[in-house]
Amino acid sequence: MANSSSKASSFPKSFGVLLYPQFEVLDVAAPIEALNVLARLEGYEDMRLSIISKTLDPVSVGPIAPDTKSLGFAGTQLYIPTHTFETVPHLDVLLVPGGLGSMDPLPGGGKPDIEDHITFLQDVFHGLKGKTPLKYLISVCNGSILLLKAGLLDGQTATTNKDGWKYITGMGPKTNWIAKARWVDSGRIWTTSGVSAGADGVLAWMESLIPKETLTQVVNTMEWIRAENADNDPFAAIFRCQDVPRVE
Amino acid sequence: MANSSSKASSFPKSFGVLLYPQFEVLDVAAPIEALNVLARLEGYEDMRLSIISKTLDPVSVGPIAPDTKSLGFAGTQLYIPTHTFETVPHLDVLLVPGGLGSMDPLPGGGKPDIEDHITFLQDVFHGLKGKTPLKYLISVCNGSILLLKAGLLDGQTATTNKDGWKYITGMGPKTNWIAKARWVDSGRIWTTSGVSAGADGVLAWMESLIPKETLTQVVNTMEWIRAENADNDPFAAIFRCQDVPRVE
Repeated sequence: MANSSSKASSFPKSFGVLLYPQFEVLDVAAPIEALNVLARLEGYEDMRLSIISKTLDPVSVGPIAPDTKSLGFAGTQLYIPTHTFETVPHLDVLLVPGGLGSMDPLPGGGKPDIEDHITFLQDVFHGLKGKTPLKYLISVCNGSILLLKAGLLDGQTATTNKDGWKYITGMGPKTNWIAKARWVDSGRIWTTSGVSAGADGVLAWMESLIPKETLTQVVNTMEWIRAENADNDPFAAIFRCQDVPRVE
Repeated sequence: MANSSSKASSFPKSFGVLLYPQFEVLDVAAPIEALNVLARLEGYEDMRLSIISKTLDPVSVGPIAPDTKSLGFAGTQLYIPTHTFETVPHLDVLLVPGGLGSMDPLPGGGKPDIEDHITFLQDVFHGLKGKTPLKYLISVCNGSILLLKAGLLDGQTATTNKDGWKYITGMGPKTNWIAKARWVDSGRIWTTSGVSAGADGVLAWMESLIPKETLTQVVNTMEWIRAENADNDPFAAIFRCQDVPRVE
């Protein structure tokens, strides 16, 4: 128990999630569910979450262009930021979801609204402009695109979602891409495969920091049928993805 | 292809999700992710989603009482309703998430704020007060408590989350409870096990209505490691749950 308490007290306290228009809802909600459950447990109640975007306006899961598909479905889902890039407190851990909104051009046409998010990522990762450097940066799915554009995956080993494998790995020649990986632990940076893989990646990250019995409690409360090993990734074969070694 | 188009055109169009304070975020987001992905596909773009609560005020994932645990984490997560019980359009399908906010007393003390939600469930299920009867009602996790209190599980076969098995099944003596079930299909009513099981249940429900190849496309895009059979439920054994036959 002393060991558990000590692990709890050293566990990161300040979490952030970075929102941009047309993010993928499960990329956010599955990892956040794992953290929500942990934050209810004794020793973890002082965890804090900042929901971060360019402004405090609600951020839509749906498409930006009004003539884009599924506006009436995904477009009704709005998340409310708690902080902007200017007001966000010190962060220990930042979660970057994927989504169609990171693609250029956007599926419905137009440019993605992620430029300021990329600058923020550079600032908070490197500790620029008075920001304290992140302890951990975790991307889900094609949230890896924001990390790539911020130059944060140069020289790193990483993975990303399998549906967009060629498109995304083609943007990152300085990165060593692992295809059959539900997640990749690259130290300060963790990258996960698509959508649902975000929860497996965050659970694996938590497992590296908290007692095994606490992790099991979180998984069981979530009733999450977990991929316990990083190579438990059936989707690499389904989408015929191959490793892409660093070429620069 | 003619068959696929015909199935798409007969697929339900108007979806709702019922929010109450301290709902479980993944209970909503995992099924909604599956529906979001489907709504992007050809033939399904006219799907519509209403996010329904008592008022249009944002609904918090976090605890209601300010002295309750994890206020600074879950309490920063707010969802914005699009409709109240009075303004909601005709619904084909309603999703009812679980959450600590359905428990009486609440974990932090006090009464749950779900009474009006239960009345709404009765109205929309039975087609009262000018409402068109639902085609399908789907509960996730202990969202089953709202269905029980509305009398909608009387005489039905159902499941619920495994962590709260005794508490919930004890509330429903008129229901035939199946322990080892990721979900239960009872016709108009589908119930699922806890949290993550909501996606498996909704995917199984979708599979009963759309072409197999469309369902596979949704699952692969989500990179969801799916429980394809209802009895693929490891958590019944973990929480030592047993079937509870109807006793009245």
